[in-house]
Amino acid sequence: MVERLVVIGGDAGGMSAASEARRRRPSSDLEIVVYERGGWISFSACGEPYFVGGEVEALEDLVARTPEQFADRDIEVHLFHEVTAIDAVNRTVTVRNVHRDVEFETPYDDLLIATGAAAVRPHIPGLDLEGVAFMRTLDDATALRALIEGGARRAVVVGGGYIGVEVAEALTRRDLQTTMVTAGESALEGAFDPEIGDRVVARMREIGIEFRAGLTAERVEGASGRVRAVEAGGERFEADIVVIAIGARPTVALAEAAGVPLGESGAIAIDDHQRTLIPGIWAAGDCAESHHRVGGHAVNIQLGTVANKQGRIAGVNLGGGDERFPGVLGTAISRLCDLEVARTGLTEAEAADLGIEAVTVAFNSRTAAGYWPEAERLHMKALAEVGSGRLLGAQIVGGTGAGKRIDAFAMALWNGMTAFDLVNVDLSYAPPFSGVWDPVLVAARELTDALESHTG
Amino acid sequence: MVERLVVIGGDAGGMSAASEARRRRPSSDLEIVVYERGGWISFSACGEPYFVGGEVEALEDLVARTPEQFADRDIEVHLFHEVTAIDAVNRTVTVRNVHRDVEFETPYDDLLIATGAAAVRPHIPGLDLEGVAFMRTLDDATALRALIEGGARRAVVVGGGYIGVEVAEALTRRDLQTTMVTAGESALEGAFDPEIGDRVVARMREIGIEFRAGLTAERVEGASGRVRAVEAGGERFEADIVVIAIGARPTVALAEAAGVPLGESGAIAIDDHQRTLIPGIWAAGDCAESHHRVGGHAVNIQLGTVANKQGRIAGVNLGGGDERFPGVLGTAISRLCDLEVARTGLTEAEAADLGIEAVTVAFNSRTAAGYWPEAERLHMKALAEVGSGRLLGAQIVGGTGAGKRIDAFAMALWNGMTAFDLVNVDLSYAPPFSGVWDPVLVAARELTDALESHTG
Repeated sequence: MVERLVVIGGDAGGMSAASEARRRRPSSDLEIVVYERGGWISFSACGEPYFVGGEVEALEDLVARTPEQFADRDIEVHLFHEVTAIDAVNRTVTVRNVHRDVEFETPYDDLLIATGAAAVRPHIPGLDLEGVAFMRTLDDATALRALIEGGARRAVVVGGGYIGVEVAEALTRRDLQTTMVTAGESALEGAFDPEIGDRVVARMREIGIEFRAGLTAERVEGASGRVRAVEAGGERFEADIVVIAIGARPTVALAEAAGVPLGESGAIAIDDHQRTLIPGIWAAGDCAESHHRVGGHAVNIQLGTVANKQGRIAGVNLGGGDERFPGVLGTAISRLCDLEVARTGLTEAEAADLGIEAVTVAFNSRTAAGYWPEAERLHMKALAEVGSGRLLGAQIVGGTGAGKRIDAFAMALWNGMTAFDLVNVDLSYAPPFSGVWDPVLVAARELTDALESHTG
Repeated sequence: MVERLVVIGGDAGGMSAASEARRRRPSSDLEIVVYERGGWISFSACGEPYFVGGEVEALEDLVARTPEQFADRDIEVHLFHEVTAIDAVNRTVTVRNVHRDVEFETPYDDLLIATGAAAVRPHIPGLDLEGVAFMRTLDDATALRALIEGGARRAVVVGGGYIGVEVAEALTRRDLQTTMVTAGESALEGAFDPEIGDRVVARMREIGIEFRAGLTAERVEGASGRVRAVEAGGERFEADIVVIAIGARPTVALAEAAGVPLGESGAIAIDDHQRTLIPGIWAAGDCAESHHRVGGHAVNIQLGTVANKQGRIAGVNLGGGDERFPGVLGTAISRLCDLEVARTGLTEAEAADLGIEAVTVAFNSRTAAGYWPEAERLHMKALAEVGSGRLLGAQIVGGTGAGKRIDAFAMALWNGMTAFDLVNVDLSYAPPFSGVWDPVLVAARELTDALESHTG
């Protein structure tokens, strides 16, 4: 008998699962139906800031595959179809056709929840004014670009995370006078330790972004239905555009209503096969929880890398295979013009929160041999556990070529290496690429020294 | 009682050992004396092609530390002092002061042989003509640069390895009409599989280097004591400069004469603490053997990375510590203008030679998201063992930002990961840096498919 897989949400988690399941089971064995409440599937949310900034010209460039391409593989995609309820007992979902405003019920054998995450809306007045923008969906990005091209001159970005920083750069590229206002102490707070964030702040200021820390947005002020200013921490910042980028939360209301348990991160709890605790219901992507391999704690990482991988694992298992999702490291990379920032594992603050006693090192290095004329600066911070020497995490900030080096460190973390193990790893070297001791190895050497003097 | 460490050779292996030993034992406990037969210590041989090409202006830039700096740390360095004999029974060495042509004997408690490697001199006539150059020492580089600046117009590089390719680029930068002649089938033969080498050849031709494969140099022809042409494979190539770059051999005559056994690679056999088989005698760097972690075989890798690491390990153990050298992967990187080439582990040819049954994948990818305007091309080849799925090696060739990605793969190899393990590793992603599946992860996915279809 043909089984039926229903997927809720057509971005990375959902479509990766659908693709992988189809690769393993033909349509004579498994019907696959995707309901997406918006008008786009399989798009790169991470690419949106560059569309806003104009580096990526066409919105379509951000779409990896169209519904037609999925149809060719017998994956049925319904755009503008929102799943409004799950009946986990009878294994049906209620679907609303958003355009025609009609609802219907449809059965499933297996259900994958891949509802993603939604931008956090602060509880402040004025969010409905024209000129207020969010950055989550392609429609958000389109709206923001239209505002820019409509002649806006001053922008305020509320929030200092990855998206805030990337959007601030994009606005500056578009010649808007841009201010970033954050409640935090520095940029990229939470993702990076503050002294790393401060380097990003310094670069933002160099490119003309006004950065203001420690200010909580209280109100968006308007006139004639249009944004005029943001009030934050008692100060007033004039603006034609206000981008709210204070983070995103996993979209779990539908799952919760159906009795699907959440985990301690607030995202949907899953086992290592992407199964929720309710039979027949699976979850993947930004709405689902992950296990942090270094900290051992539950996390909700809203990144395309994790969504794609979780989706693939769900698809393998829905497709009759048997593969477990081995967890995450919290690896991430971003860019502010030519300044690259990257992280993996735990920050110093995260290690402290988890009660892990760590030694920390920080040092300056280069992306090439010291004598190389085009060597870019690179600053690296790394930590290891006192006693065991187990590597815990690293952060890199620097010029072109600095950021991707985090992957070598991520790979070391993944394998549970100690700082002592890492020192001797045979990494590549030639003068245009690094010193003879690559910065990742320098980190290991500094950590072993710190560990030894901590013991001694 | 003060012990005495004598180090033969003042480059990476020797000076790393001396530094590390000194860090651990003060001069009241350990006297350290270095004899270097040339006029330079602690220099970057890898940087020489860039000095020749003029990208690095001053020769001194290639020197990491001077004898004076070592003297400040109570490490005694004697330039132009060649060790001509080792008496392993009485623990003495015979040293010749090259300038004054006098010899003396001096005792040691421990002796580190760090004599490096020397350029292979082919058995062909004409090598003593003016205009024939080698590329090994700083003096070689200086001589070649002088020849270029003396008005040479045509150059022939004999040999197609890393140094040959890097020198050919340097000569082209200096506006010399340059021909590369190699006995091999492609460039970088041995280090890379031929189809990767062919991409380097294509780039060489684009920048105006004439590349001729399958031709063995038979004779350097001169007139009035100066080079006029090279004859190879029955053809004649006119030249004002002939650079011989057909590889290097470990400098082991001194060790052999003293009865220090060599390993199967032809380099000095050592245990995992850098001890030779003769009590009190150690070896590190280009003259010493290494254990290949993937192939399990003995290799002689003449790279600064390995020399520095072996030297450090020797220094740790000479300094009273206890650390083993865990082997090598044969990781390496090079550059031809903006084309980066990198490798780690085994090539397809090496795996075959070792009798390891492998699946191989090769694919094109990019250094950024597909839609990213400045994405550079990247071609990757990777192999894994049939049955176990154990990763065996990878080669990358591509534009700026491609090469250093080899380090993530190297780290995976180092930890003995399988292709199945590698698929899910949490590497960094943002559109300016890679697709959501980093090329290293794409390699893993392609390998798992190849492994599965091989089994099936």
